[in-house]
Amino acid sequence: MTQKTLGDYLLDQLFQRGVEHIFGIPGDYILRFDKLIEKHPSIQFINTTRENTAGYMADAYGRFKGLGVACITYGVGINIVNALSQAYVESSPLVVISGAPSSAELSKEVRLHHLFNKSLQEHIESTQFEIFEHITVAQALLNNPQEAAKEIDRVLMACLALKKPVYLEIPRDQVDQEVAPYESSLSIPEANTLALQEGLSEIRHILLQSQRPVLWIGHEILRFGLTPQILEFARTHSIPIISSLLGKTAISEHDPLFLGVYLGGMSPAALQEYVNSCDCMLRFGVLLNDLDTGIFTAKFPQKNQIIATTQEFKINQHCYPKVAFSDLVSGLNLLDLQKEFPSDYRSIHKPLKIPFNPEPSHKISVDRLFACIQSHLQPEHVVISDIGDCLFGSAELELEFNSYLACAHFASLSFSIPAALGVQLACPARRPFVIVGDGAFQMTAMELSTAVRNNLDPIIVLMNNHGYGTERPILEGGFNDILNWNYTEIPRVLGKGRGVKVTTEADLDKALAEAVRTRGEFYLIEVDLAKHDLSAVLQRFGTLMNQQAGEKKT
Amino acid sequence: MTQKTLGDYLLDQLFQRGVEHIFGIPGDYILRFDKLIEKHPSIQFINTTRENTAGYMADAYGRFKGLGVACITYGVGINIVNALSQAYVESSPLVVISGAPSSAELSKEVRLHHLFNKSLQEHIESTQFEIFEHITVAQALLNNPQEAAKEIDRVLMACLALKKPVYLEIPRDQVDQEVAPYESSLSIPEANTLALQEGLSEIRHILLQSQRPVLWIGHEILRFGLTPQILEFARTHSIPIISSLLGKTAISEHDPLFLGVYLGGMSPAALQEYVNSCDCMLRFGVLLNDLDTGIFTAKFPQKNQIIATTQEFKINQHCYPKVAFSDLVSGLNLLDLQKEFPSDYRSIHKPLKIPFNPEPSHKISVDRLFACIQSHLQPEHVVISDIGDCLFGSAELELEFNSYLACAHFASLSFSIPAALGVQLACPARRPFVIVGDGAFQMTAMELSTAVRNNLDPIIVLMNNHGYGTERPILEGGFNDILNWNYTEIPRVLGKGRGVKVTTEADLDKALAEAVRTRGEFYLIEVDLAKHDLSAVLQRFGTLMNQQAGEKKT
Repeated sequence: MTQKTLGDYLLDQLFQRGVEHIFGIPGDYILRFDKLIEKHPSIQFINTTRENTAGYMADAYGRFKGLGVACITYGVGINIVNALSQAYVESSPLVVISGAPSSAELSKEVRLHHLFNKSLQEHIESTQFEIFEHITVAQALLNNPQEAAKEIDRVLMACLALKKPVYLEIPRDQVDQEVAPYESSLSIPEANTLALQEGLSEIRHILLQSQRPVLWIGHEILRFGLTPQILEFARTHSIPIISSLLGKTAISEHDPLFLGVYLGGMSPAALQEYVNSCDCMLRFGVLLNDLDTGIFTAKFPQKNQIIATTQEFKINQHCYPKVAFSDLVSGLNLLDLQKEFPSDYRSIHKPLKIPFNPEPSHKISVDRLFACIQSHLQPEHVVISDIGDCLFGSAELELEFNSYLACAHFASLSFSIPAALGVQLACPARRPFVIVGDGAFQMTAMELSTAVRNNLDPIIVLMNNHGYGTERPILEGGFNDILNWNYTEIPRVLGKGRGVKVTTEADLDKALAEAVRTRGEFYLIEVDLAKHDLSAVLQRFGTLMNQQAGEKKT
Repeated sequence: MTQKTLGDYLLDQLFQRGVEHIFGIPGDYILRFDKLIEKHPSIQFINTTRENTAGYMADAYGRFKGLGVACITYGVGINIVNALSQAYVESSPLVVISGAPSSAELSKEVRLHHLFNKSLQEHIESTQFEIFEHITVAQALLNNPQEAAKEIDRVLMACLALKKPVYLEIPRDQVDQEVAPYESSLSIPEANTLALQEGLSEIRHILLQSQRPVLWIGHEILRFGLTPQILEFARTHSIPIISSLLGKTAISEHDPLFLGVYLGGMSPAALQEYVNSCDCMLRFGVLLNDLDTGIFTAKFPQKNQIIATTQEFKINQHCYPKVAFSDLVSGLNLLDLQKEFPSDYRSIHKPLKIPFNPEPSHKISVDRLFACIQSHLQPEHVVISDIGDCLFGSAELELEFNSYLACAHFASLSFSIPAALGVQLACPARRPFVIVGDGAFQMTAMELSTAVRNNLDPIIVLMNNHGYGTERPILEGGFNDILNWNYTEIPRVLGKGRGVKVTTEADLDKALAEAVRTRGEFYLIEVDLAKHDLSAVLQRFGTLMNQQAGEKKT
């Protein structure tokens, strides 16, 4: 092997792990690394308009491509913190690379711009590192060329093994230092095989007793590529499947085993009844929050609860430590159960009706909007929902395998537009179909600049309900109102893209057909909704939120 | 005194300290507090489009009004982190208030949205608090109504005493809890009077020996309101004054004592020569970085260096601990020096020539742009410069006392637009005059939405040099290019505001006159500059940056 510079070595390591795009904003501490990206034959630098949207794009890219990378300059690059937080919580393999001053620069008495102006220990400015330690699973300050390759390997392995964000900091004088190549020693974390066997046989025992099990799957099934294994298990025994919102499309939603996205008391009545009647619940790779449980209204069976994630494997009240999640999911197919459960759940899942027959002059309602969207969706579409009523409405869409993205747990408003660009760069054969509210859209709409620059063509359905609609049922006030932009004029500012505003069912239907036909530029459809037209789910949500908060305003 | 709820008590405390506007984005954990703001008779809630711009607005508001407040929801509100970092570094009195889940909510096994998904100690989710601890000087989790008033007092006192940001976290069930009022016990920090006296007499001794002193003043003079004291001292002894960029307009730049903003080797030649010839330097309230020192080219006298900030008081190599900065500055006027220095520096400061005579069809150059701006500035204008060539160009403008704002030390790209709105809300009698590059403008341009909503009318001079111009001289590459928007179409999107694009000197002159005349809506002037037309200062800057980074690309 030949000697390489730290920068080139890192880029090659990233490329070997599937990275073909790196997102970021240039800045003097990271410029030399940016230049190396530009020179790299197989990796493209994607300029974004802001650091936090670079983070969102890289997060989405990583969820679809296995690894996402954003690079920032020191100090002000901290704007990326929310993307890191979200990737941490929702398990997205995101690498953030920050340039930094050299230790020679830090040894001067005079401080540098973009720094935190704290006393320095051994000429290391550690503030950004320390802040990012809270929301990453591995970090390295690459200030030693002898150790750099080993450190890079350690950090990237953690990112890929845990599907959680990591942080690399490169003093700018280190980018061109030669590093010795490092032969990665793939270390398998210690696993307890006996615990796995004992746990599996307890699952077998429970399933033998059970009459009505249900399998609740989440985002970790997607992230760790365990869909084939979980599906084989469910099909063999005819066990119905529900998914979390964060795990939506971990299996194809056309699958006859699929009952819907389950949200406790916010779910359709038939689904709630079915889940409540189950005598065994297998929860695999699900990270539950208040939304998933319908504000804590989800009912869990008194016994026979099997919970497995990358963090724990638990049956009822006892835990099996050190069981690898992937081993456990694969192990389900070796249970020798010889049992098929009754399939009386087949009628529960009610997809939105196709075709959609518009009532030409009817003003569009939220419910009808989603019915219309359903009728226009194509297999290549990836539905990317923002936070708001779009999230609740999109939960009901019936989609193909791996065709949905929403930050449904950490719930960062405005993720959708940058995420769409990350997804399309990760999967050029797919087309992003964004559903976003006006409040969220105002936060990151102008990142469509990056779509124009890179010839990306997301479809954007902007649900203009005139403010922070999700909050109105919780607590109404002027703070929930926003300025009503002329959204369809945005293509004029960006010099490309299409914008159309619709108010009737017929116009919506026509615009969606046109959007699906039109390729090569983004297509924005502003759907004018009544301010208080909320989906039934959202109305229910507001009521539940108020109840759980405990005290009502008097 | 009557019992008050925690929320009302906090608002009253803020109002008593001058706060009339609070900036933020609503979200469920902070909604009840937002509602209290809406109900408060004297405080207005200003909806922004994003959390980080709320932070920037509150930062700017605080610099002009003495205290700025932003409020956010939990988790995703962490987007405000860059504003906090900048306020920390540049000493801005900023209070960030975050809503949070109640401990009852945190005691449930199921997690909540917007949280960091870490193991909780005693039902407290501490991640955001711990992250903000790095970049605030005081913090409180207001989860005890008995202690809340005392804690609020402690945190606000720290903010005001140090002019640094602080953090308050309010679990949402605490907003309506009654708190006992707390009688603030104003505690004066321990000061060493003997050290003050000894230090002052050493200053007297040095000045008696000196032939040519220079007084370098910085932002702490502005922040702590010490302009009258420092001016009295300088006038009494005819000591010339230079300022840092962060401290620009700490005195009126029309003052005959003022020599200019000093930037080491990036300063005008005559100013450099003068400063280099001085035999005594008094540096008061200056926080130096690489930019202030012209990339470490500033020459300091071998001896007779007197350095005073809120953090230290140092003469040459020895320190006087525990001397209050304000006491020291005031003490300068009791020196009994009986000495007036020669005023041979009067010809050094060369303001930009007025009137500006446009060469009608000449394409505008960067240098001529600033000359034209100078000729149109009015006393009520506050020049708000972003980061980029605008920063270097605006350094040379001659302005009134307290008429300039730029985050010249931490250097957050895109601060200017939100900052302008914060300034105008803080000082309704003044008008923001923003100078911003295209790269920065793309990051926060749409925050002009908040100008439209609140009838604010900044003038915006957009220096369109087609990319990240400041970086081109450092290292050129495609990453320095950005999409060229049709910026003047932005008013069309927002439904209000004026936009005009100019390329010639005559058109610029006319547009600026029109902008100054036009009140009641924002006025955007896009100035089309040649891509490689950089101010002389910036060209010098790039060369210096490359030199100090040490290794050149081969």
